[in-house]
Amino acid sequence: MKLKVKLLDLEAGGKFIVVLNREDAEDLGASGLSRVKMSSGSKSMAAIVNVAVESVPRGYIGIYNEVKKYFNLKDGEEVDVEVAQFPTSVYYIRNKLNGKKLAYEEILEIVKDMVSGVLSEIEIAAFVTALHTFGLDLDEATSLSLSMVETGKKLDLKRPLIVDKHSIGGVPGDKTTLLAVPIIAASGLTIPKSSSRSITSAAGTADRAEVLMPVNLGIDEMREVVEKTNGCIVWGGALDLAPADDIFIRVEHPLSIDPLLLPSIMSKKKAVGASLLVVDIPTGRGTKVKTIGEADLLAKDFMELGRRLGIKVRCAVTYGEQPVGYAVGPALEAWEALNAIMGRSQPYDLIDKAVHIAGMLLEMSGKSESGCGWEMALEVLKTGRAEEKLREIIGAQGGDPKIKPDDIPLGSEKITVYSRRKGIVLWIDNASIVEAARLAGAPKDKGAGVLLHKKIGDKVSEAESLATIFAERAGKLERAINIFEDFPAIGVGDRMNMLIHEVRERPVAKKAFILER
Amino acid sequence: MKLKVKLLDLEAGGKFIVVLNREDAEDLGASGLSRVKMSSGSKSMAAIVNVAVESVPRGYIGIYNEVKKYFNLKDGEEVDVEVAQFPTSVYYIRNKLNGKKLAYEEILEIVKDMVSGVLSEIEIAAFVTALHTFGLDLDEATSLSLSMVETGKKLDLKRPLIVDKHSIGGVPGDKTTLLAVPIIAASGLTIPKSSSRSITSAAGTADRAEVLMPVNLGIDEMREVVEKTNGCIVWGGALDLAPADDIFIRVEHPLSIDPLLLPSIMSKKKAVGASLLVVDIPTGRGTKVKTIGEADLLAKDFMELGRRLGIKVRCAVTYGEQPVGYAVGPALEAWEALNAIMGRSQPYDLIDKAVHIAGMLLEMSGKSESGCGWEMALEVLKTGRAEEKLREIIGAQGGDPKIKPDDIPLGSEKITVYSRRKGIVLWIDNASIVEAARLAGAPKDKGAGVLLHKKIGDKVSEAESLATIFAERAGKLERAINIFEDFPAIGVGDRMNMLIHEVRERPVAKKAFILER
Repeated sequence: MKLKVKLLDLEAGGKFIVVLNREDAEDLGASGLSRVKMSSGSKSMAAIVNVAVESVPRGYIGIYNEVKKYFNLKDGEEVDVEVAQFPTSVYYIRNKLNGKKLAYEEILEIVKDMVSGVLSEIEIAAFVTALHTFGLDLDEATSLSLSMVETGKKLDLKRPLIVDKHSIGGVPGDKTTLLAVPIIAASGLTIPKSSSRSITSAAGTADRAEVLMPVNLGIDEMREVVEKTNGCIVWGGALDLAPADDIFIRVEHPLSIDPLLLPSIMSKKKAVGASLLVVDIPTGRGTKVKTIGEADLLAKDFMELGRRLGIKVRCAVTYGEQPVGYAVGPALEAWEALNAIMGRSQPYDLIDKAVHIAGMLLEMSGKSESGCGWEMALEVLKTGRAEEKLREIIGAQGGDPKIKPDDIPLGSEKITVYSRRKGIVLWIDNASIVEAARLAGAPKDKGAGVLLHKKIGDKVSEAESLATIFAERAGKLERAINIFEDFPAIGVGDRMNMLIHEVRERPVAKKAFILER
Repeated sequence: MKLKVKLLDLEAGGKFIVVLNREDAEDLGASGLSRVKMSSGSKSMAAIVNVAVESVPRGYIGIYNEVKKYFNLKDGEEVDVEVAQFPTSVYYIRNKLNGKKLAYEEILEIVKDMVSGVLSEIEIAAFVTALHTFGLDLDEATSLSLSMVETGKKLDLKRPLIVDKHSIGGVPGDKTTLLAVPIIAASGLTIPKSSSRSITSAAGTADRAEVLMPVNLGIDEMREVVEKTNGCIVWGGALDLAPADDIFIRVEHPLSIDPLLLPSIMSKKKAVGASLLVVDIPTGRGTKVKTIGEADLLAKDFMELGRRLGIKVRCAVTYGEQPVGYAVGPALEAWEALNAIMGRSQPYDLIDKAVHIAGMLLEMSGKSESGCGWEMALEVLKTGRAEEKLREIIGAQGGDPKIKPDDIPLGSEKITVYSRRKGIVLWIDNASIVEAARLAGAPKDKGAGVLLHKKIGDKVSEAESLATIFAERAGKLERAINIFEDFPAIGVGDRMNMLIHEVRERPVAKKAFILER
């Protein structure tokens, strides 16, 4: 059926929706919520059908912005519409629902149909749920990784050796990448680092880096920066390395499940052409992975999946019981990282983590012939070569290479939290710190966040300051401070205080879900 | 935020969608695909947010027809919109995703939020998938049944004893209800029968009955009919007995899973106040339940769930290896049933099934004191009292009580299929018969369908007619006949023909999914 385009100026958060006149829909045999195949020029897609009585006359097709953009449509243009064939990939999803293992060709078909809009949210949600409940074995994880690479763009750097690092996330304030990438690039290795924005955290690496430089680079711009500087720190979202992953995340987030952790990470590393990779697995009560045993098992899977994809993987199981460094929130973290790389401050844990992760890659690549990579990395940091490289990258990405920590605007609304007793800091609750930072406005308000003044093991006097909360708006500061009052985020006591709290009635378990990966 | 209504004349197949101006959406903190709570008068709902730049100006809210209908909105009216709280029910769904058993209060919350539009399709799909993969135990099935009753309307007949019958479906041509309900009502029992339309079959009981009388009755009209005649045969969809079920079906259908079979059926029986129920479980290769052992297990679950809901259940495990009677398709089936109840034809299996199912209820209720219910039922049928009652019901529901079989329009396009050899009918493939009837236009084209001339065990000469396919349009007849040629639907051979077919290469398993319940 030939129909004339009527642009509707409506958006549905990424879904492909078209509106047919009720009678045209009936003639086509497509009623509400079914799918049509729509073609224009050489492109075609499957779109969800809504119907209208008068607002879309017979012979016309109402077009949502997502569809307009895909085809680059204009009002009045003619397009071809037919009832969509029932996608074979749905049969494969049904097989997974019944516990069957899927083959590569089947998974590829599912991922392709997902990316081209053929699958509905119901089908995608069922697939992700089945992956969560039945689990996926390494064959399926490999197939998923390769399918996600297959359906995305590739970086195609003409370099013999490409390395990468990745944290599975979960520990607040983790600005390690802002130090590790410059150290690695300054050592002569090529590291095309793409990062994500925050989903459930207070800041993603892309949010942190954006305080220092533009990060919304396309894949060609990214290639230019890496060819010039050996490294980059860009947002992955504009690169289209694995568009399937954005769709998976849209489903995983409301359900708080994350069965695609491994394929999601590994597909992007494959797409940038990495052959050496260090995966950071922060471990501790407030992170994704609670125990070292669990971390080791996950590491094994990463290494095996890497082997199948032709990527040599080593994992760093790291301490994650408290934020890394003192700052949590985009601007605060960028400020802390810039100070640290300039040698103006010494957040020891941050530096230790950065040089060890950089060091592992230096060892794997054979750059550190002594065999002690972290010492070599520390040397690169201390001599200022890392700072120089960071500024080079900032400049190449279009930022101000002369940026000073004082240039970074922090939230003007702030309040400091004081200890009610003297003692030492016994624990810091990551989830509460993140919640406070988010209530204060992070990551959207870049100046919002939490700056710790004490960390675990530090001595505290009565009424000494523990942390300062920053916000850009007074109302948000108010909300954030309440969290500190309701759920103490920092525990101060004597070394022998064994009781954390009493459980007197059925407790409400607040469980934070960490999707960043 | 107060916003002015702008009706959009768009429909989304039952979902609640509103369109905000992008800036209003940002002020509210609601972007694409998030939810807002919308209130007007004393009613409120959660709606999915789409956004627009110009077509919905600031200060306005674009309204889909489903939302308009719910609130009865007019253009320019003011409504209140705020960001929806994160629904607690999603936590319960997450628990089910992790294999936890849900309590009644939790399931009620999920079903309530589903019915009021608070839950997204992603969340509902995940819930249904988890019910399918983990299964639901009888406690959860009870909770689901009660929650579905709780969120729907009730019939509230002021009668001491209400009985009901139900088939879980799956056997084509099953017009048993058209005979059984009049027999039961004519015997002095009250049977407020609601039926479904076809989803994956060639005709649902509501489609069949609609050929004889209006079936789209509201709950008050239904009550009137039953008070007048002791029975009715109406479509369940307009009654709102369990609106949750329609939403579940919307998700189950594309996924071909049916974890809600038991709660779905039992909730509607509870909602009409039934205390005695016969559940028909057709059994055989072409039906939902393949073996008698499986049927017995399912029967046990029905009886136990009934006990918990205060409904005494007996199950009839019935023969389902071929269609019931000779006709498949709405008009053909109504025509066959009317002929049979008038004593003009003798489709023995149909009559046998109807009197046995009616007889079981007569025995359970104590109406048949002899203890032989089916003989009493047959007597009611033979003496014409069942016909009289059917005509009474037809009249009460607004149909022509004097309707004759010849008044029923059958498809004018038809073609007869002949046997290529002589022998006896060894098997009839239910799925192929259904597919042919659907391709011919059933259930939408009421006159379309398949009329068998032979059934299993019948002798056939060479070139004798096996079946006639009816359609309302020649093009559809063409499609239907192809099926008969590609996949023989009726197997004719000698008693000793043991080979059904050879498998020479990887076969494509065509598996029919039957959702009717």
